Amino acid sequence: MAGDASPAVAALSEAELLSRIFPRLAVDATHSAATLLGPGDDAAIISAPDARTVISIDTQVQDQDFRLAWPNGYRSTGFDVGWKAAAQNLSDINAMGARATSMVVSLTLPPDTPVTWVEDLADGLTAGIRGLGADGCSVAGGDLGRGREISVTVAVLGTLDGGPPVLRSGAQPGDVLALAGTAGQAAAGLALLESGVPMEQLDDGLRNLTERQRRPVPPLQAGPAARKAGATAMLDVSDGLLRDGRRMALASHVAMDLDPDRLGPLAAGVEPAARLLGRNAMEWVLSGGEDHGLLATFPPDIQLPPGFTAIGSIQALGIDEGPRVTIAGRAADTGGWDHFAD
Amino acid sequence: MAGDASPAVAALSEAELLSRIFPRLAVDATHSAATLLGPGDDAAIISAPDARTVISIDTQVQDQDFRLAWPNGYRSTGFDVGWKAAAQNLSDINAMGARATSMVVSLTLPPDTPVTWVEDLADGLTAGIRGLGADGCSVAGGDLGRGREISVTVAVLGTLDGGPPVLRSGAQPGDVLALAGTAGQAAAGLALLESGVPMEQLDDGLRNLTERQRRPVPPLQAGPAARKAGATAMLDVSDGLLRDGRRMALASHVAMDLDPDRLGPLAAGVEPAARLLGRNAMEWVLSGGEDHGLLATFPPDIQLPPGFTAIGSIQALGIDEGPRVTIAGRAADTGGWDHFAD
Repeated sequence: MAGDASPAVAALSEAELLSRIFPRLAVDATHSAATLLGPGDDAAIISAPDARTVISIDTQVQDQDFRLAWPNGYRSTGFDVGWKAAAQNLSDINAMGARATSMVVSLTLPPDTPVTWVEDLADGLTAGIRGLGADGCSVAGGDLGRGREISVTVAVLGTLDGGPPVLRSGAQPGDVLALAGTAGQAAAGLALLESGVPMEQLDDGLRNLTERQRRPVPPLQAGPAARKAGATAMLDVSDGLLRDGRRMALASHVAMDLDPDRLGPLAAGVEPAARLLGRNAMEWVLSGGEDHGLLATFPPDIQLPPGFTAIGSIQALGIDEGPRVTIAGRAADTGGWDHFAD
Repeated sequence: MAGDASPAVAALSEAELLSRIFPRLAVDATHSAATLLGPGDDAAIISAPDARTVISIDTQVQDQDFRLAWPNGYRSTGFDVGWKAAAQNLSDINAMGARATSMVVSLTLPPDTPVTWVEDLADGLTAGIRGLGADGCSVAGGDLGRGREISVTVAVLGTLDGGPPVLRSGAQPGDVLALAGTAGQAAAGLALLESGVPMEQLDDGLRNLTERQRRPVPPLQAGPAARKAGATAMLDVSDGLLRDGRRMALASHVAMDLDPDRLGPLAAGVEPAARLLGRNAMEWVLSGGEDHGLLATFPPDIQLPPGFTAIGSIQALGIDEGPRVTIAGRAADTGGWDHFAD
C-alpha cells in the first residue's frame, strides 16, 4: 500500500491507534443498551437478560476472504471489510433466531497498513451494525496486533429473549423449506470483481451485485421472526444453498427437495451478470455463498413470516436412504465453498 | 514445514479437519457445565447465570506472538501455542475477578500446516483449560480458515457469579499494591529461546523459564479471590509491571509506588538466566510481559487473599501532578511491550 498519503499504523503506538478507532465505534444509547462495561479494561461485560448468551466467531483474512486489489481494478476499502465482518457475524446470530447484543473485534495489521484504512474499517463495522438494523448491538472491546496479512476476527454475542434457539437439526418430513434474503448475488458479484471488466463499465444493477459481495445484507429481522413463527430448523447460507442445505438435511436426518420453479426468480436476479460473463445463473443460486440469507423449515400449516419465500419441501428418508438434497427429485451436486478441499 | 510426516491440512476437507479437532476439545461434564449448545450449529449458547457475560478476545500470530522455530533451536509445538492461547484469554477473565465459562476459537492455517500440529494445538487448548484449573470452561465452537501465517484467535466468556467486576480504575490512595503470580519469568524465557544457547544445555531451572514463555501459568484462583476480598482495582500483567501499572495509575488517577525490596524475590527467580545471558534481572521483572500475573490494589486494612504479595502502595496525586509509577519514589521508565511503537 505504498504511496498512500495516510501514515502507516507502524508510525503510531497501540494507544494512539486505538484512540483513532474508538470514537468511530461509538454508537448511540439505542445501540449500546446491552453493554454494561465497554472498551478499556481487561474484558467487557454484556447483559444477558435471559441468563444465556449466544456466541459465534468468524475471521476474514486478506487474499482469502477479501482481496485488497481485485482483477477488475476495484480496491477493497476498509469500509467494505468492516461491513462484511459485521454482516457475516450478525448473520450467525440471526440464524439461531437471536438478536445481537455485542461484538468484540481482533485486528491483525501489517505495519504498512494506512491508518485511514483502519479508520474506514471501524466506520464500516459501525455502518454495518446500524445499516443492517442490529439495534442494541455495539462494539464492546477488542485486540490489536501485528502480522504479515490483514486479518479481522469478530466474536458476536446475542440473546434469544427467552425463546428457544432454532437449530439446524429440527427439520421434519412435511415441513416447508423457505429462504429469506438473496442467493447467488454475492457469487455473481465475486465473478464480476474477478473479471477483466472495469467497475466503470458496469451498469447500476451489476455494480449492486459487486456490492452484495463486498457488503452483504443478511435479513436480520427474519431470524427472530422465524423463531417466533415456529421455524423447526434454520441456518445461515454462507457456503451455498446446496451445501448448507445438505448440512441441514444431515443434521435433521431428512431429505430436502428444492423446487426449480421457485428458484427461477433468484436466478433472474443474477442473469445479467451471467450473460455478461458467459456463466450459469442457476449455478450461482445453487452453489454461490456469502449472501447470508436464511434457510429455514416451517410446519406446513404455518404462514411464513415476512421475508421468507417457499423454495422446497422436507421429506422422510426411505429405508437405507441417506440424508440428501435433490432438485425436483433429481440428485444435485453439492458444490459450494470449502476452505481446504479443492 | 516440509518433511513432516503428517499430511497437510490442505489434504483434508474442512469437515474432515474439524472431525480431527473436535474430539480433542471434548471435556468432561465438570468442564462443560456452562455450555448449553456446543459446536455444530451457527452459534453456541452459553449459560450466563447472573444475566451478565464477561467477554474478551485475543489473537496470537505466528512470528509475532510465537515463533515456529526459535534461534536456540527449539520448535514451538501446537501444544505450546494452544496452551498459551488458552492462558492469555483465561487471564483476561481472571483480571475482572470472574471465572471462565466458555471459549470459541478461530484458526487461520496455511495449507501446508501439518494436521498433527493442529491436533496438538487442540490438545494444548484443552490441557491449558484443565491444567490452569478453569473448571466449568470448555471450547464451545469456532471457525477454520486459510491464510499465509498461522493465527489463533480466542474469545473467552466468563461469569462474575453475581459479584461486581474489579476494574482497573478503582485504586484509592492508601491502598496496598499487590501481585499474584510471577513477573519477569516469561521475558527471561523469551531471552533464552532467542539466545544461541541450545535447549539441551539449559538446566531444569532455565528450561522452566522457557516454559513460562511458551506455556504461561496465570493464577486463575487469585482473580475471583481478590474480588471477594474487596480488591479496589485489578489488571492482567501482560505487557510488564511498569507499563500495566501505568495503565492502572492512569485509569485510577493515582500515583503508584513500587517497593524495590519487595521486587527482589521476583528478580532472584530470573537471576540465573540474567547471569547466563549478561542481562539485568530487575529489568525483566519491571518490563517483561506475558507472565499474566495479576496486579491488584486492596484497602490497607484487608488481609491479602492467598497468592498475593504486597509490592508497593497507592498514593494521591499532588496538585498539577499526573498519574505515574515510581520505584521507591523515583521516576521509572515505562518500558514494556507495544505492538506498533518501537
